[in-house]
Amino acid sequence: MTISQRRARLRDRLAAEGLDAMLISDLVNVRYLSGFTGSNAALLVRVEDETPVLATDGRYRTQAAHQAPDAELVIERACGPYLARRAAADGVRRLGFESHVVTVDAFAALTDAAGAQTEWVRAAGTVEALREVKDAGEVALLRLACEAADAALRDLVDRGGLRPGRTEKEVRGELEALMLEHGADGPSFETIVAAGPNSAIPHHRPTDAVLAAGDFVKIDFGALVSGYHSDMTRTFVLSPVAQWQTEIYDLVATAQRAGREALAPGVVLKDVDAASRQVITDAGYGENFSHGLGHGVGLRIHEAPGISAASAGTLLAGSAVTVEPGVYLPDRGGVRIEDTLVVGDGTPDLLTRFPKELAIL
Amino acid sequence: MTISQRRARLRDRLAAEGLDAMLISDLVNVRYLSGFTGSNAALLVRVEDETPVLATDGRYRTQAAHQAPDAELVIERACGPYLARRAAADGVRRLGFESHVVTVDAFAALTDAAGAQTEWVRAAGTVEALREVKDAGEVALLRLACEAADAALRDLVDRGGLRPGRTEKEVRGELEALMLEHGADGPSFETIVAAGPNSAIPHHRPTDAVLAAGDFVKIDFGALVSGYHSDMTRTFVLSPVAQWQTEIYDLVATAQRAGREALAPGVVLKDVDAASRQVITDAGYGENFSHGLGHGVGLRIHEAPGISAASAGTLLAGSAVTVEPGVYLPDRGGVRIEDTLVVGDGTPDLLTRFPKELAIL
Repeated sequence: MTISQRRARLRDRLAAEGLDAMLISDLVNVRYLSGFTGSNAALLVRVEDETPVLATDGRYRTQAAHQAPDAELVIERACGPYLARRAAADGVRRLGFESHVVTVDAFAALTDAAGAQTEWVRAAGTVEALREVKDAGEVALLRLACEAADAALRDLVDRGGLRPGRTEKEVRGELEALMLEHGADGPSFETIVAAGPNSAIPHHRPTDAVLAAGDFVKIDFGALVSGYHSDMTRTFVLSPVAQWQTEIYDLVATAQRAGREALAPGVVLKDVDAASRQVITDAGYGENFSHGLGHGVGLRIHEAPGISAASAGTLLAGSAVTVEPGVYLPDRGGVRIEDTLVVGDGTPDLLTRFPKELAIL
Repeated sequence: MTISQRRARLRDRLAAEGLDAMLISDLVNVRYLSGFTGSNAALLVRVEDETPVLATDGRYRTQAAHQAPDAELVIERACGPYLARRAAADGVRRLGFESHVVTVDAFAALTDAAGAQTEWVRAAGTVEALREVKDAGEVALLRLACEAADAALRDLVDRGGLRPGRTEKEVRGELEALMLEHGADGPSFETIVAAGPNSAIPHHRPTDAVLAAGDFVKIDFGALVSGYHSDMTRTFVLSPVAQWQTEIYDLVATAQRAGREALAPGVVLKDVDAASRQVITDAGYGENFSHGLGHGVGLRIHEAPGISAASAGTLLAGSAVTVEPGVYLPDRGGVRIEDTLVVGDGTPDLLTRFPKELAIL
């Protein structure tokens, strides 16, 4: 699917909802619908005009013309208010806006700029709903991102990067450098390296804590490739392994498999969460799994759909999601195992291929 | 200044504005006022109570208790609405909120939760105004961040990292790894490495373009240390140097010095921009300097004050700001030179110490 086909899908949806146009404020949505990656931009998509209007500021004149050649380009620092005025001047009456992104102050500026003839309609999540189903080009980029992360972790382990005496920060630095060597543009979020008791903190940031024999080492990380994010967690043990460690590792691995096997188009999202969580709850560790099972991943590290006990809706074919149960025992240690997968008609397409058997290093 | 002293300053300001409390939604502001660094949180600061209420979700129970020991901790995923209800229950009538951060949809949820007795007052920028003046601990962290960046660039140049045949991405990867070696938690923003004609794009992202003899190589980058961002740009030439290159380099260097020399408490911000810009305009390159002169830097890479022709207000003692004029000649090349400095009573404190004489490598 080309970028102009993405906009055609949006224009169909706007027409179906009785809107004349939509003002896109979220920069990731601007990127999805135009190709432009600058840090200040807005996009006006009108139902009756195939050409969108892209507003950005002078820093990005060259870049915007290059990245979004089929848009009408306007250089104007106050992107949103300019496009609101422009929409009104073009005869747009019912104008969708991103009420989940536009702040209270920014909305006041938009309504001032457009004037009294414009009816503003909340269109939160309209573009995100399109983004939930990945097209082939997006899956290809997600796959590249996951491959870069797989290869980096493989190299890290093969060269003995996980061993007693190293600090969490050293491991993080080496892993991130390896991702760059394998083609990543950077990490896709703040890399988590959590050793020993720190592994019991679900979102621990790397410190100068030293890896020691008998530690769990939990690594949650990803690569960014052309705007697409990979997300994977693996948990290792530095020899010797204790029985409680193999027990909770096996438990989490079983729960993770149950979650992966529940992924199919049309399945209720909270049932996917439940399929995995039930395994952990039945073993008596329900209290130690304190977060949702997973989330969509794409141009953002967290996007639709969320997969938790509170999720509404069902899973769509073409969604890219994580499955990441964990069990965390305070002051002792924790295990999380996470993959990124694309939902399809058969077995989900596993993008993160690094092995999940317990590795005792 | 301790974190509780920061809150005391805020409470004084709220009292002066006739507010009973403020709901902090911006995560950086939550960090500034509580120490907590998680990705889902809100903070309620009440004029009449020294203890703030920090809300976050179950992932962060351990981390929040550790980072914000003097706050009342509430585990609740819908942080904002919970604190809105809590404020109403505590008898808060006039409640400040961050109208520049809270979205239209989120504000609807807040007002629903609080009920009809609460008067919501826009308090955009209240915490950012406190953050504009750095305390000693913040300057120390900014200095560490700038030192990590200085040392990394020094190493990169000394080991011949900038030479014909390397790609922009390779240079970026090596520079980022060196920052980690020198104590950075990561890059403070997406590193810019722009060679040859790409140097004419102010915010170019690294590509596979190969550095060649005669190129400008523009590097805009920074280190992140404990949440604080450094920001520095240096532009090199790969031998041989052409006369047009030394001319625009000298011009930008002169403009940059003029900007630095204009930094003093009480100076009108747009006069700082003008002091530097005039040098470039007088030389006939005004059209080729398409962005503002600088910006505040701290817990965010861009924060108050902005320094541009459109800025309102004056410079404050204790502000940390960048000075970064540039001249960009499309399809030929561009130069930017940028420092981070802390404004004081005498000469500003230059945090980015890497030399600015034209280096021909």
